[in-house]
Amino acid sequence: MEPCNVRIVLVEPSHPGNIGAAARALKNMELSELVLVNPRQFPHPEASARASGADDVLGAARVVPSLGAALEGCGYVAATTSRDREQYFRVSDVRAAAERLVSEARRAPAAVVFGAERSGLSNEDLEKAHTLVRIPASPLYASLNLAMAVQLVAYELYRARGAAAPASVPLAAPLASTGELERLYAHLAEVLEEIDFRDRTQSGTHLMARLRRLLQRAEPDQNEVNILRGILTAVQNRRRSAGGGRG
Amino acid sequence: MEPCNVRIVLVEPSHPGNIGAAARALKNMELSELVLVNPRQFPHPEASARASGADDVLGAARVVPSLGAALEGCGYVAATTSRDREQYFRVSDVRAAAERLVSEARRAPAAVVFGAERSGLSNEDLEKAHTLVRIPASPLYASLNLAMAVQLVAYELYRARGAAAPASVPLAAPLASTGELERLYAHLAEVLEEIDFRDRTQSGTHLMARLRRLLQRAEPDQNEVNILRGILTAVQNRRRSAGGGRG
Repeated sequence: MEPCNVRIVLVEPSHPGNIGAAARALKNMELSELVLVNPRQFPHPEASARASGADDVLGAARVVPSLGAALEGCGYVAATTSRDREQYFRVSDVRAAAERLVSEARRAPAAVVFGAERSGLSNEDLEKAHTLVRIPASPLYASLNLAMAVQLVAYELYRARGAAAPASVPLAAPLASTGELERLYAHLAEVLEEIDFRDRTQSGTHLMARLRRLLQRAEPDQNEVNILRGILTAVQNRRRSAGGGRG
Repeated sequence: MEPCNVRIVLVEPSHPGNIGAAARALKNMELSELVLVNPRQFPHPEASARASGADDVLGAARVVPSLGAALEGCGYVAATTSRDREQYFRVSDVRAAAERLVSEARRAPAAVVFGAERSGLSNEDLEKAHTLVRIPASPLYASLNLAMAVQLVAYELYRARGAAAPASVPLAAPLASTGELERLYAHLAEVLEEIDFRDRTQSGTHLMARLRRLLQRAEPDQNEVNILRGILTAVQNRRRSAGGGRG
């Protein structure tokens, strides 16, 4: 993952726990620069506890006396708000804002600014930003916890840098080949015939087609096909050693 | 927003604060069903404090003795994990998983299961799920706080239901029309000529083109154009009352 020159700025955070939780959120999403404007209590044991394994990010957090100082050297600046009535500002959805921030941060440091837990950012603070960032949330209760908002922004920044968890089925062996699967289905059909199994459902789809589709969805690997073949063989052996059943 | 029949299941959460923070995260994202499997401490003042305005979701949380009981009546089940080595399970990125969950929840209740803070989910628990959900995170420190993970899943569920903060510039007046903007630019050019302003930059782009592009990017509304026109007129009046300047 390329480094990401986006600093996270918390203006006058009240709860040291939120500072620690924010540090952890940054580290989880490969961000490292946390700037605190006049935190009410910092350093604080509650911040350290909530930072958990991100004590390095917390320890490197800078404390500054003003938002201006926090933004020194920054180019693009985004400010979070949950208020709906900020007029004349550009407003971006957090996902689009994250893409813009990552792109801008390749040229110059960028910043995302978060306000205090209860009051949010002042108009004067908001006016330092190029865009306001809105996180979609319930109109009935749109007020996210400060550290949660930091987590969501950090997560979208991480995704904007190209991160996504790959969809997969991690297998110990290679996926079974078409031929192996065909032999499995043939074996299964043989056994079903030997045990005289009839489909009792009303489905119009033929029994073997349904079983094939079920097993195809499961994406079995070679080991698993071998296991299923072993079970089928065991069923046959048992029937044979028991005298061949009803046939 | 359509209701979303996805329940959030926390298995043996250790910290009551995380339960409260999870309740708030649910309410922020218009989810309401929180199920707790053998919580270590619940109810608890720390849970209530962190729930903040989501005391209704917290109060309605169900406590059950087993994951099986939590999943009663559920169809599709997803389980979160940060471990990398779960074999033979289907693994989905959280965004894709959220889309699937929302779609499945239209037919039958669906569930997302979260493990305890330190230990995560047991293999037995994971085996109740149709897919594991992976939240992309730093390979250096992938362990998200429990409530943070709930927040990210709830957020992606909310987005999968169609929520996005609209990109906009909320204006008090309609956007200025092309004609109004043209008259503004003509007025501006006139004033620049009157004050004999010359572009001193090395840019190859003509001065008026640059100023037009700047103002177009700002997407001014009718009031703002009127304000700018007023400023230009004031500049002209001042010069005229001062005797017409150098011209």
